[in-house]
Amino acid sequence: MTAINSEMLAEFIQEIAVPDPTFLQAARTHLDHLTKPPGSLGRLEDIAARLIAIQKGIPDWPLHKAAYVFAADHGIVAEGVSAYPKEVTWQMVLNFLREGAAINVLARLHLAELTVVDVGVDADFGVDFGDLPGLLRRKIRLGTRNMLHEPAMTEGEMLEALQIGLELATGAHEKAQTLIAAGEMGIGNTTSASAITAVLTRQPPALVTGRGTGLEKRAHEHKISVVDAVMQKHFGPDLRISDAQPLEILRRVGGLEIAAMVGLFLGAARYQIAVITDGFISTAAAALAYAIAPPVKQYLFAGHCSQEPGHRFLLEYLGLDPVLSLEMRLGEGTGAVLAMPIIESAVRLYTDMATFASAGVSGPSE
Amino acid sequence: MTAINSEMLAEFIQEIAVPDPTFLQAARTHLDHLTKPPGSLGRLEDIAARLIAIQKGIPDWPLHKAAYVFAADHGIVAEGVSAYPKEVTWQMVLNFLREGAAINVLARLHLAELTVVDVGVDADFGVDFGDLPGLLRRKIRLGTRNMLHEPAMTEGEMLEALQIGLELATGAHEKAQTLIAAGEMGIGNTTSASAITAVLTRQPPALVTGRGTGLEKRAHEHKISVVDAVMQKHFGPDLRISDAQPLEILRRVGGLEIAAMVGLFLGAARYQIAVITDGFISTAAAALAYAIAPPVKQYLFAGHCSQEPGHRFLLEYLGLDPVLSLEMRLGEGTGAVLAMPIIESAVRLYTDMATFASAGVSGPSE
Repeated sequence: MTAINSEMLAEFIQEIAVPDPTFLQAARTHLDHLTKPPGSLGRLEDIAARLIAIQKGIPDWPLHKAAYVFAADHGIVAEGVSAYPKEVTWQMVLNFLREGAAINVLARLHLAELTVVDVGVDADFGVDFGDLPGLLRRKIRLGTRNMLHEPAMTEGEMLEALQIGLELATGAHEKAQTLIAAGEMGIGNTTSASAITAVLTRQPPALVTGRGTGLEKRAHEHKISVVDAVMQKHFGPDLRISDAQPLEILRRVGGLEIAAMVGLFLGAARYQIAVITDGFISTAAAALAYAIAPPVKQYLFAGHCSQEPGHRFLLEYLGLDPVLSLEMRLGEGTGAVLAMPIIESAVRLYTDMATFASAGVSGPSE
Repeated sequence: MTAINSEMLAEFIQEIAVPDPTFLQAARTHLDHLTKPPGSLGRLEDIAARLIAIQKGIPDWPLHKAAYVFAADHGIVAEGVSAYPKEVTWQMVLNFLREGAAINVLARLHLAELTVVDVGVDADFGVDFGDLPGLLRRKIRLGTRNMLHEPAMTEGEMLEALQIGLELATGAHEKAQTLIAAGEMGIGNTTSASAITAVLTRQPPALVTGRGTGLEKRAHEHKISVVDAVMQKHFGPDLRISDAQPLEILRRVGGLEIAAMVGLFLGAARYQIAVITDGFISTAAAALAYAIAPPVKQYLFAGHCSQEPGHRFLLEYLGLDPVLSLEMRLGEGTGAVLAMPIIESAVRLYTDMATFASAGVSGPSE
């Protein structure tokens, strides 16, 4: 594939359409004929109907599941915003490749094909770590620039990262994947996600900046002040954020893994693949994709709501109810993959339950 | 087994002990060594630690899962408290046996062995419906008495129903089941559960009485007035409910399937088996079992929180956080079985993740 430019990206985005509403309506009607009081499966009914509308009918069983984990480093880490040193990014990438991380365990258990993508880790895997089969090497740069002083990415870097996500979505389409998850690893990336959330949802940094991997009170206050300064730097002293365009927000305060996830969300919508958001960072990428192309939302399932305070603002912005709320705050795609058995359950209930007529069960009394 | 009497029951209850706390502490320590920020798996960590403490170590894999669904009718249905006619109880039992109900679909998908028990359905399955392999026949009576006018059960009937649950728990222990769910089917049983909840949690009937399978506003108001009248009848004009003993609450305003579930919860605790509560009625039974024997709580996992308004009061009374909150209101054990893949995920993360030391990942910065 040739390098994408902004005109090609705009063209791609133009092709994103909402799912055909006739399938959604037909699915809801079918659900009301199953042997249960109408609506009694709660949000499982909405999940099933939406997935079937996206698929234009009942998907092949088992669902073809996959998880994409994008790893990158962040220049802002120089400001002391994380409880962990940035070396943890590459160390965790190796842990993914050796199958020892939480996402490996969950992807194995729930039968999701796992793809680990280096889009900008600050480590030369080629030289220092040998062959590393299983790593998709798409490194753009050894981490983003420090967004406290300059935009995190150039336009070229951002487009390159977006293209990685778009290409993986194209690949998912070619492999007929029916349910995919977007996760990440990147020390410092909750700071990026906080800035994105502050701009998109118009909330003050103090409300949308959390403790990340586990900051103490003073370090947390410092992180908030850094997000504040980043906002002043990029969106003006009076925060004229209403003028900010989503791609420019991404370029200025995003990350390489966040841009790749934005590409994956856009691509999933373009190819009509159901895609699950994971934690705060993954959802920040989904929110940007939605801001870029509103029909994206119709293909999104919110895997969970994490402990990061900004996450629920993003879910409200997207108008999505999370499948799970287990107070997780790990990322890696863990919350998204954990939602897969629930989404699958919704589909199986839709396809396998008896109807009132077939089972000879009475309806409500008069 | 000979018929149980109240002395034998008291003896059985005496044998219920809390799990050994040393296993819980050891499990928490292990969780903090896994390659993730401490606590970042949220409630999955608590689920894993509790299950491992109950099991006194890592359980065999796969978990040996089972769901028990108890069906019975309710005399109170004569007062017009349900949107569906009572025939739906036996019709749904047949649907269970033909594998067409929601619980069948979920038990198949999540590999839980399903046992359907008739403890008091108002239909003679023997004569009218042929052989029905798969139905565990333990019918005590063709439904409870109308609790508006008299206690729902005699002491003998209640003990018989409790014994069914105790025996199934004994069987679960003999079969080495490690994760079991308690569900029910019984038109009218949310009325019983509302009365139980009002007594145990000291909340007014209007707050804990919901729409059940889907009552309209006026019928809902009528149902509240029926629960009110039931409370006046059994717990005095001034509601001296503080004197009410849990077994007497069960006998007066419970149901045969509710008593059987109380027996299953008591038995699971006695044999140290993890047991998942389902919806409002199942949780009402768990709350009674906890009131009878407080250590029972240590063996309970709350599968979900349903749309029934009384359910959250019961979960607060029990001090349990639900695994799922999907606005379901179906019963049958569906919410409990749906929580199984999440509980299993917690166990697999505990057993299969790498530690910081084994993976060479750095801890927090100084």
